[in-house]
Amino acid sequence: MKQSQLFTKTRKEAPKDEVAKNAELLIRGGYIHKEMAGVYTYLPLGLRVLNNINGIIRDEMNKVGGQEILLTSLQEKEPWEKTNRWVTNPDVDVWFTTKLKNDTELGLGFTHEEPLTRLMKDHIRSYRDLPVYPYQIQTKFRNESRAKSGLMRGREFLMKDLYSFSKDEAEHNVFYEKMKQAYLNIFRRVGLGDKTYVTFASGGSFSKYSHEFQTVTSAGEDLIFVDEAKKIAINREVYNDEVIADLGVDKDAIVEKEAVEVGNIFSLGTRFSEALGLMYVNERGENMPVVMGSYGIGPGRLMGTVVELLSDDKGIVWPESVAPFKFHIVRISDKEDAVKQADGLYEVLTQKGIEVLYDDRVGLRAGEKFAESDLLGLPCRIVISDKLVAENKVEVKIRSTGDTHVLSREDFLKGLQEHTPHEKQ
Amino acid sequence: MKQSQLFTKTRKEAPKDEVAKNAELLIRGGYIHKEMAGVYTYLPLGLRVLNNINGIIRDEMNKVGGQEILLTSLQEKEPWEKTNRWVTNPDVDVWFTTKLKNDTELGLGFTHEEPLTRLMKDHIRSYRDLPVYPYQIQTKFRNESRAKSGLMRGREFLMKDLYSFSKDEAEHNVFYEKMKQAYLNIFRRVGLGDKTYVTFASGGSFSKYSHEFQTVTSAGEDLIFVDEAKKIAINREVYNDEVIADLGVDKDAIVEKEAVEVGNIFSLGTRFSEALGLMYVNERGENMPVVMGSYGIGPGRLMGTVVELLSDDKGIVWPESVAPFKFHIVRISDKEDAVKQADGLYEVLTQKGIEVLYDDRVGLRAGEKFAESDLLGLPCRIVISDKLVAENKVEVKIRSTGDTHVLSREDFLKGLQEHTPHEKQ
Repeated sequence: MKQSQLFTKTRKEAPKDEVAKNAELLIRGGYIHKEMAGVYTYLPLGLRVLNNINGIIRDEMNKVGGQEILLTSLQEKEPWEKTNRWVTNPDVDVWFTTKLKNDTELGLGFTHEEPLTRLMKDHIRSYRDLPVYPYQIQTKFRNESRAKSGLMRGREFLMKDLYSFSKDEAEHNVFYEKMKQAYLNIFRRVGLGDKTYVTFASGGSFSKYSHEFQTVTSAGEDLIFVDEAKKIAINREVYNDEVIADLGVDKDAIVEKEAVEVGNIFSLGTRFSEALGLMYVNERGENMPVVMGSYGIGPGRLMGTVVELLSDDKGIVWPESVAPFKFHIVRISDKEDAVKQADGLYEVLTQKGIEVLYDDRVGLRAGEKFAESDLLGLPCRIVISDKLVAENKVEVKIRSTGDTHVLSREDFLKGLQEHTPHEKQ
Repeated sequence: MKQSQLFTKTRKEAPKDEVAKNAELLIRGGYIHKEMAGVYTYLPLGLRVLNNINGIIRDEMNKVGGQEILLTSLQEKEPWEKTNRWVTNPDVDVWFTTKLKNDTELGLGFTHEEPLTRLMKDHIRSYRDLPVYPYQIQTKFRNESRAKSGLMRGREFLMKDLYSFSKDEAEHNVFYEKMKQAYLNIFRRVGLGDKTYVTFASGGSFSKYSHEFQTVTSAGEDLIFVDEAKKIAINREVYNDEVIADLGVDKDAIVEKEAVEVGNIFSLGTRFSEALGLMYVNERGENMPVVMGSYGIGPGRLMGTVVELLSDDKGIVWPESVAPFKFHIVRISDKEDAVKQADGLYEVLTQKGIEVLYDDRVGLRAGEKFAESDLLGLPCRIVISDKLVAENKVEVKIRSTGDTHVLSREDFLKGLQEHTPHEKQ
């Protein structure tokens, strides 16, 4: 894409009403726009990042047998009353509520166990129909009292939520472990692998623990206790001697860290299926409640977390897997030869299917363009200047390391052949 | 995809609470699920159709220079008060409203002129920043009193809304005409070209007419007056002698028809930019209000309209461009050779990147499988029976025409080479 066409502008100054680094950098870069606290619009570059993250999540969900659907935000009370989750006391709950014209009260879904469990009654009858794993990437609404962490705690935000429907606990447990691995794959692929820990958190009536995926960052609102050698952590809420012993971690090796919950997997047992009557007939002809699990990731929160962790004082440092474009051609001369060479390079890359942003804007100083390029944070910058053009060379700068290489245009193009445009793993 | 894996089931009986054919067939086929009147979940097959429609819309929007973004549903009052559209009287308006915990009233967006106009103030300053065409495919909420037309009138539904920001009316008009063509392309590509008319409807302060795209169907809620020779129509609301003369249509040739509005394009002039202060500095250094237009299409409504028009007494007849899968392999024998040949064919097609649904379920009668296949309505059915396997043949049946061809497996595969899996135009 040519930057002269991109409608968004970057800003030098930080927005006054943001305290979170992720929101500050993403707004300055023109990635997102704040509508109100906890409610953000995704602008073209931001939507590209979000779609890349969604693509990785979809890929991992499809690999474990997920089937994508799209549930609704508007929610009738009825199934939520059956599970005792229609609690609209503003002191304790996160429902946004609204009304039909005939005064029927509705809620805006903050999660989707209830409607999906009800829906699955049309499709699950026998053991032959199980297991199944529907999931969606859909907008959730949560009436948070405070929302000051940018994309990391939203009142309106995207969520990938998968729900598993299994015959029994044994079948459930096999899938639960598969999802743990799928989640770790996702965090690795978006660039958070090193800093993300499977974290033991409180379970429910049906399991001793649930598992969170916590990414260590000072921007996080959670406190976790990390065993770095074992690559696991314990959430503050369940951190006690019994749990330490249970997990076999060495208390002396544990480090306390601030972290953000980037994902969560939960064994639901038969809580929802029993309340809503989701039963199946087993091999022996008996009526049994379906065993369920839920598995959530917020793609926007993930984007915010990537920015919190992968940024420096100049701006964002996108990993290649989620960057809005892999390359940023920055032309710092408006002379004919430079324009010609930069235009040509843009064409070549575009035709190869490589995603490239081309700063073709005229009349800007090199310093301005470089500062903006650092802020935007694309993985690989290609500089086109008069001097480089005269020598038939390009300068390649890697955003993450700052490494700069000057190489001939031919060698650069040859190097490209050896790389696929997007590493999918 | 193997049908044994697909979690949805079809139904023989029509749902009791639906009067619209589109909802009835889509629910029976397991494409959608009704959450409440006007609020539908998209199940795996339905989401595939929706995504195909969205893909066609995106393609046409990107071709005219559209830049995709994603605005929010939660809306502050402020910009809507400035344009006098914060009217929450339930007798006249379609707002769903809700509240933050501090009692601040919010609305759920039923359109997005106001937030986008406000947002664009950060990005438009000079004539050099214009024109620009942001668009989104996003969920709208409309508090309709009655919603009984299935996907054709929703309380919660997807909408593609593009907004144009131009320097002046001349620049606006050029783009407006381009969009008219882009819209016609979309309706042609989804299979509604023949039945869809550019329809003159009431304009506003800034233009004599707006333009609707009306598809003729008895399921429509609108009444239009069609000049079939000229391929244009006039909406009832502006149908009078003056307009007939103005458009140069022959009154005697006009036919009255029921139709559904599948798209709408509207010149907004400076109504929103003046109210919200979206100004730019022109070439002469003068402050000017930006000239705007809005352009809407409901992908879900489009899906419903396709079903209304392209279905028969057996079920849906998807056009190839939007079908969830192009091919339906229906294996009507569970014997070893049939299984082997059907499995092999499924593998071959899948590896070619061709989207195929494979009815690999065991123990069902041929009649049941064919009835279900007709209901689902994939364009091309491939039958695998013992007799055909013995002769190394396949039977190919075209859903739209009912034409049946028996050909050798080799000829069938050879024929595939000559077709791209998806015709994009």
